[in-house]
Amino acid sequence: MEIGDWRKKIDELDEQIVRLINQRAEAAHEIGVLKQASNLPVYEPQREQQVFDHVCRNNPGPLADAELLHVYERIIDVMRTLQRRDHES
Amino acid sequence: MEIGDWRKKIDELDEQIVRLINQRAEAAHEIGVLKQASNLPVYEPQREQQVFDHVCRNNPGPLADAELLHVYERIIDVMRTLQRRDHES
Repeated sequence: MEIGDWRKKIDELDEQIVRLINQRAEAAHEIGVLKQASNLPVYEPQREQQVFDHVCRNNPGPLADAELLHVYERIIDVMRTLQRRDHES
Repeated sequence: MEIGDWRKKIDELDEQIVRLINQRAEAAHEIGVLKQASNLPVYEPQREQQVFDHVCRNNPGPLADAELLHVYERIIDVMRTLQRRDHES
């Protein structure tokens, strides 16, 4: 396979990743709504640690856990912003 | 659905996302090898812009494009580090 073929594969993977991250955002939004109804805080460090642990346990490589967590810190950050936006609206 | 049910769904989504990000890393690694063989640079701003455009075009929401790009900047950053690591080894 040449560079162009691998890039086509990356584009296909990105389409799936984008869809799944948005499904994750929908679920986070639903949790935000339920938290708001129960007056629970958006930021729950214990749950975030569970997510990071779960991600590392399911990491088949070649990415190192630290590299994957680097991405997931950003995912969690964006989801938290989304829940805060829900709380304010 | 309660918070626990949504969290189970998020865990399942994360398992898929983790697998796909690693497949993306494998493809990026292969591109890195091909680039090295042809003396091409790791950093190609034009291709990175193509990736960002492709991601936004395929964004179904609820995430805003800017939020999705925030995640993708981190993904690209990690992939670039991986290719540099390949170049050095």
